[in-house]
Amino acid sequence: MKINILLYDRMTALDAIGPYDVLSRFPGNEVLFVGERAGPIRTDTGYLTLVADAALDDAPPADIVLVPGGFAPPLTPGPVHEWLRAADATSTWTTSVCVGSLILGVAGLLDGRRATSHWLALDNLAAYGAVPTAERVVFDGKYATAAGVSAGIDLALALLGKIVGPEAAMVVQLGIEYDPAPPFQAGSPATAPEPIVTFLRENRDMVVQL
Amino acid sequence: MKINILLYDRMTALDAIGPYDVLSRFPGNEVLFVGERAGPIRTDTGYLTLVADAALDDAPPADIVLVPGGFAPPLTPGPVHEWLRAADATSTWTTSVCVGSLILGVAGLLDGRRATSHWLALDNLAAYGAVPTAERVVFDGKYATAAGVSAGIDLALALLGKIVGPEAAMVVQLGIEYDPAPPFQAGSPATAPEPIVTFLRENRDMVVQL
Repeated sequence: MKINILLYDRMTALDAIGPYDVLSRFPGNEVLFVGERAGPIRTDTGYLTLVADAALDDAPPADIVLVPGGFAPPLTPGPVHEWLRAADATSTWTTSVCVGSLILGVAGLLDGRRATSHWLALDNLAAYGAVPTAERVVFDGKYATAAGVSAGIDLALALLGKIVGPEAAMVVQLGIEYDPAPPFQAGSPATAPEPIVTFLRENRDMVVQL
Repeated sequence: MKINILLYDRMTALDAIGPYDVLSRFPGNEVLFVGERAGPIRTDTGYLTLVADAALDDAPPADIVLVPGGFAPPLTPGPVHEWLRAADATSTWTTSVCVGSLILGVAGLLDGRRATSHWLALDNLAAYGAVPTAERVVFDGKYATAAGVSAGIDLALALLGKIVGPEAAMVVQLGIEYDPAPPFQAGSPATAPEPIVTFLRENRDMVVQL
């Protein structure tokens, strides 16, 4: 399988690298990092540079397209969304992590579909005709969307399970020793202490600017 | 806090990016990616390039030093290990993910200490005088080591909890929506089906070359 992962300025690195590190470990899978331009992409914190190996126009078609989220995702219709529509026309799976689903929404790819996003942005999906669905990973036909940041790892394992089977996905899971043990119970608005949830709701701009 | 994260050829990206995306989100924390040379570093699969913003000799001291694992970690004593000893002399925390602990071991920093590593490499720690400890995250004094790849996220949250307190760590955890839901039960040799564990034991070279 060929996998194209979109990179853009101020994206969130883990949104892309979590799924990448799962999907790239299955033998025969090939990943290409695609940017609006080829070359360095500075991620959201300003401390990390990833490199896009191909510009949008130079990326060959892929079986899987993955769109990460970011601090200020590109939501004004432009070349990224045109590229996504073209990529989606030939993809087997079109996927996103975190507010990457809003980018798919702007591209018009989630109209009428169940989808998820970062919990602070979930309601924004409705503006694109999607059905906001508060689950960690949501499949609707060939579209797979993940909740915030770290959920991309779960999405990628689920996707690998569908494509190459549970055994192969489990080999990859054991290879990356994905037996998570968060030291706190605060990973979702349903499990986090109420003051933590309220703090982030009132300071959403710390996490994402929409 | 200043955090230096080591990058090297054929490292595993998620080992570094998981902790980075946790630690960098606490306001005031600054991360510097440090390489044997500044510039592009190709990671283990060959599909991703990260950029080191400083060479070893140019990196200012940091409060936290983090060493990721990789497919073929540098285990021949050299500049990386000299740098780690110097960095450790002034660090508040010296940490590793996956077989990064073996690199700390070569540097002589784990002698007599409890430490963990990727499950396929755990026993190798004894060669450096460390006490192999089959836990996901192991703290021994100022040394914190994580198990394979994805365990770096748990390490970073635990570390943040110790440094700035549980509430701040929970804000970060909810910010990255770290409420993991692996689609399979195969993340550790204790939980994975026996044939999956056996397959990886017999094909360890697919994961790490030591």
